[in-house]
Amino acid sequence: MRTRAAVALEAGKPLEVMEVNLEGPKAGEVMVEIKATGICHTDEFTLSGADPEGLFPSILGHEGAGVVVEVGPGVTSVKPGDHVIPLYTPECRQCASCLSGKTNLCTAIRATQGQGLMPDGTSRFSMLDGTPIFHYMGCSTFSNYTVLPEIAVAKVREDAPFDKICYIGCGVTTGIGAVINTAKVEIGAKAVVFGLGGIGLNVLQGLRLAGADMIIGVDLNDDKKPMAEHFGMTHFINPKNCDNVVQEIVNLTKTPFDQIGGADYSFDCTGNVKVMRDALECTHRGWGQSIIIGVAPAGAEISTRPFQLVTGRVWKGTAFGGARGRTDVPQIVDWYMNGKIEIDPMITHTLSLDDINKGFDLMHAGESIRSVVLY
Amino acid sequence: MRTRAAVALEAGKPLEVMEVNLEGPKAGEVMVEIKATGICHTDEFTLSGADPEGLFPSILGHEGAGVVVEVGPGVTSVKPGDHVIPLYTPECRQCASCLSGKTNLCTAIRATQGQGLMPDGTSRFSMLDGTPIFHYMGCSTFSNYTVLPEIAVAKVREDAPFDKICYIGCGVTTGIGAVINTAKVEIGAKAVVFGLGGIGLNVLQGLRLAGADMIIGVDLNDDKKPMAEHFGMTHFINPKNCDNVVQEIVNLTKTPFDQIGGADYSFDCTGNVKVMRDALECTHRGWGQSIIIGVAPAGAEISTRPFQLVTGRVWKGTAFGGARGRTDVPQIVDWYMNGKIEIDPMITHTLSLDDINKGFDLMHAGESIRSVVLY
Repeated sequence: MRTRAAVALEAGKPLEVMEVNLEGPKAGEVMVEIKATGICHTDEFTLSGADPEGLFPSILGHEGAGVVVEVGPGVTSVKPGDHVIPLYTPECRQCASCLSGKTNLCTAIRATQGQGLMPDGTSRFSMLDGTPIFHYMGCSTFSNYTVLPEIAVAKVREDAPFDKICYIGCGVTTGIGAVINTAKVEIGAKAVVFGLGGIGLNVLQGLRLAGADMIIGVDLNDDKKPMAEHFGMTHFINPKNCDNVVQEIVNLTKTPFDQIGGADYSFDCTGNVKVMRDALECTHRGWGQSIIIGVAPAGAEISTRPFQLVTGRVWKGTAFGGARGRTDVPQIVDWYMNGKIEIDPMITHTLSLDDINKGFDLMHAGESIRSVVLY
Repeated sequence: MRTRAAVALEAGKPLEVMEVNLEGPKAGEVMVEIKATGICHTDEFTLSGADPEGLFPSILGHEGAGVVVEVGPGVTSVKPGDHVIPLYTPECRQCASCLSGKTNLCTAIRATQGQGLMPDGTSRFSMLDGTPIFHYMGCSTFSNYTVLPEIAVAKVREDAPFDKICYIGCGVTTGIGAVINTAKVEIGAKAVVFGLGGIGLNVLQGLRLAGADMIIGVDLNDDKKPMAEHFGMTHFINPKNCDNVVQEIVNLTKTPFDQIGGADYSFDCTGNVKVMRDALECTHRGWGQSIIIGVAPAGAEISTRPFQLVTGRVWKGTAFGGARGRTDVPQIVDWYMNGKIEIDPMITHTLSLDDINKGFDLMHAGESIRSVVLY
């Protein structure tokens, strides 16, 4: 069949919206009609050419929601008509990683997904002239129809609006999951969030959900403050207005009883390796944990004195918020529908597929939190 | 009173054994007759001048065992005649750190201890001419008699031999504690130990105690192999004999079911920041934890790509093996007395105080695991 898609023909160029060929689902695969997709910084990272593993031509997009329209042989967990969120981190429930109970990083289809291919080593997408087009993060939600492995779709309730829950496919789950799955923040904790963009806002609401007492936001842009406060931030620091952000956080978290100070948890949502160091070093001696969420430029390295770790700080990271997609994503959709978390104020722009490049422009200009494409 | 002590008069010079003045214990302090003390790399680190916080003149030594001979006003937890192990990491059971239940890094007397002083800001030691001598790590076990805060002694059973249990004051507890308190290694785990000196051997026996399945030792010196095997090592890697130690460990830990490979836990006992990086990167994607035990040179920094953490590895450190001294040290003494752990083969040399500098020579020459001074 044919479908309309925004194709990344080469690095650094705008996407081109065109008709492409899409083969039907093979064994263990499903075809999904994407109803809405967010535009994420990771799409931008790859499109820009900065991602050393980026492949072209490809169909980007990994933050979608839609409806199953066809299933291949052997598919049992979803059927046509089911509402689903595509998962760039699949959950096979069979591999050593899934069965470890210690990680969400399923490895069942890791090799082929990294090569822009379905698990059988081929692509379902091609140009009208027959040239294959690579899949992206196993999702390719910038196409109105896409094919995914069965293990890479989370079945969700049918009353949830696609244009909001698509954001659960990446940003919402990454931010909230980092708090509840990776850091396992407890009630009463003091936490710091570096970078108050889309991920940062979701970390903030994750912290509020977890019952944190002090939720400090750090950003170079004062304009981020009102929205961050809406999502739970209790204290704001603009590094431009203080000599040393680490010391500022240490001082802010001291109490009459605890004159050591430091955050119980910190989260880097910037991708800046210098900020990652501050995020570690502002945590409390003895037990502070720092979680890296942001994606750093290729080749960039984090560093610190080992003394920081020897005196009890822990350095961690998270991918997709440590969430097991098929298990945890439907629950996060429920939380949204029950009003436990908020998404609507973060969807600042909705666009048609034809206008998808405007979404990237808005991101570059810092005008959007999340732009969503509606098919 | 007067006591004999080995005094570090200045950096880079041998210790000088001499008579010094020792004031009696003030409120909350105890005087201990040291019966035996180990000579640790940390003493060497400070004596060499490499420790930027080193103070001179001082009385080094922090790995001792002895008998309480006098207690100051208000001391209730020990009395003259009690056998004790001095604690460079005290346990006040009152401060925010002790009460957190998350760390052993008691902060009650941290500031004065770092200044080489007792909690009231003065020293109990002085030269016969009256010049004050600094305490070291709050212990100064290179003196036949020393004064310590009450919160910095662990009361232990009286049938335990001083010349062996002194090693529990640092090396044994650090190595075993890193496994059971910091990493919390579970039965069946695969673990790697970098550096098979005294600390490394104790990590090995900690892993055996914890029921690890695969215990890989890494050292540049093949001669370390027999003793390491005695303490539980199941596999040995000499980095000189392989291209890439990280890849070697990943391959060794693969199974037919788990083709990702990597250690569940790794421990750096070298103090080399490049080795610390290898130790992190050889752990399993998704859940591997690396624990830094070794003390790095002043100013040295660890680094890695944040991707290592984002894909699920955790970087930690440990001080005194995460052990709460007054609570956990007596239990480790019991383990030794019950044959659950071994110490005797690691005490390779015993010396008199007059020969203490020979202990440092043996360490430099790599001929000792642990030299113990008997008073």
